[in-house]
Amino acid sequence: MKNDMNEYLIKAESRILAHLQTNRVSKTIEEASSYSIKAGGKRFRPYLLFAALESLGADLEKGVGAAAAVEMVHTYSLIHDDLPAMDDDDYRRGEPTNHKVYGEAAAILAGDTLLTESFHLITLDTRLDPKQKVEIISQLSEKAGQNGMIGGQMLDIEAEGKNITFNELEDIHHYKTGQLIVLPIKIACIIAEASDSVMEPLLEFGDKLGILFQIRDDILDVEGNLETTGKETGSDARKNKMTYVRTYGLEGAKKELDKLTGEAETILHSLADEIDISHLDRVLQRFAVRDK
Amino acid sequence: MKNDMNEYLIKAESRILAHLQTNRVSKTIEEASSYSIKAGGKRFRPYLLFAALESLGADLEKGVGAAAAVEMVHTYSLIHDDLPAMDDDDYRRGEPTNHKVYGEAAAILAGDTLLTESFHLITLDTRLDPKQKVEIISQLSEKAGQNGMIGGQMLDIEAEGKNITFNELEDIHHYKTGQLIVLPIKIACIIAEASDSVMEPLLEFGDKLGILFQIRDDILDVEGNLETTGKETGSDARKNKMTYVRTYGLEGAKKELDKLTGEAETILHSLADEIDISHLDRVLQRFAVRDK
Repeated sequence: MKNDMNEYLIKAESRILAHLQTNRVSKTIEEASSYSIKAGGKRFRPYLLFAALESLGADLEKGVGAAAAVEMVHTYSLIHDDLPAMDDDDYRRGEPTNHKVYGEAAAILAGDTLLTESFHLITLDTRLDPKQKVEIISQLSEKAGQNGMIGGQMLDIEAEGKNITFNELEDIHHYKTGQLIVLPIKIACIIAEASDSVMEPLLEFGDKLGILFQIRDDILDVEGNLETTGKETGSDARKNKMTYVRTYGLEGAKKELDKLTGEAETILHSLADEIDISHLDRVLQRFAVRDK
Repeated sequence: MKNDMNEYLIKAESRILAHLQTNRVSKTIEEASSYSIKAGGKRFRPYLLFAALESLGADLEKGVGAAAAVEMVHTYSLIHDDLPAMDDDDYRRGEPTNHKVYGEAAAILAGDTLLTESFHLITLDTRLDPKQKVEIISQLSEKAGQNGMIGGQMLDIEAEGKNITFNELEDIHHYKTGQLIVLPIKIACIIAEASDSVMEPLLEFGDKLGILFQIRDDILDVEGNLETTGKETGSDARKNKMTYVRTYGLEGAKKELDKLTGEAETILHSLADEIDISHLDRVLQRFAVRDK
């Protein structure tokens, strides 16, 4: 690997925090919005964006602003999802959730801030031209919006406590989490000016990755603990949520994880002559966590 | 007046509703986000945008998308401000507030939707070039963000029940409502490619208009009733909110309104040789509502 990925993840985080520090109006908003960014997390979406850029042979510096924006949107969604009116979670990434520290009003506004400022940050990016910025903002708002993450979150809330079909479960994940995982790959393709013949399989790879991510999350909810996942184990079951584990059983879910990992590998290998797939393959191996 | 302003206000509303109808994921989100748009309101910000475009001699068609986006951001802010954790209002524009009809979770998400989709809608605009879109998105996100509306809303919440100074009150209004009133004028200048010598006085005019708007709101809270304002009268006093009326008294507030109207007129008249000020003057006369 040419570039130190960690260095770029730190750059993206620094870009976010520097932007939030330009707040001249409200100390509370600055602290509350920074709090959830500083709480950490896997930075999976920025990582994926940089890995895709690297696979496409593009300059990773050009991705710092967009990676920051995607992580801001992801973080805003966690703050709002954790609210008492939504999932009502007290812990996130092992720390008290935003509203537990700053109160509900500030948490709602901190989420609104991260969402609004993610778009502002992209407009200020000095490494991208106006056409690229518009395309990135279009993708970000589409995949985070009514036909993406927000739509999926509403489906998820409405499904709670109900018996939903497996297709409905897949729909929820496709919209709620899947769209924001395809997004970094799509943005990398915009920045790297990738051809359709490369972009289309990569987006399909992103779709598989989104499902893989969710199955792994469901498995960790059963097998993990507060220390490794930052969430309380068994919270899905307590909330009577439909999950892959509930549908397939623990072993079945792991088998499904294996199957999808294989399919994602096949897609990647079909691109081996055109791009350097090793970086995206590393993402897959890092996040798929096969049953050994 | 060349153009029928009402026709353009209807076009902006139709653009919003058509965009919300492209929701393929959640009927609840589509209904909840459309509900607060359909609830009406004065459409002051779109009106101001079209009036400024007309004064600048620009094509009003070019402003439809941006006017729609500004109204979406304004409406999202009302939905979130009305939430129990914030101002806890049951009525808005004479109708039950969003969370009263759809519940808190859907209301939070409907607000998130309007905010997110406002940016999406601008990226899809076929009448603007990429550079204009980036500038408009930059202004929209800045003036709605941490150094604009959201910052002001946090200051407002933190001031509730406290004795604040008049300067602090002015700060709250400057950020909470003022920025989103200057915004349509700034956007019109971007679309019309106005020179700095025209734009700078116009933005100053917008600042005055923002304060006028707030003083009038405070007066109506005392003098108005549910029917004309769509809000319950006296809600500021009940919440122990600092207002212009509380600071100056009712007569003093009306005098201040008169004084500011005069200042705004002076700015407009200084531009009379360069642009057609009649349209913006009509806005001023329509919204200032002098004491007769």
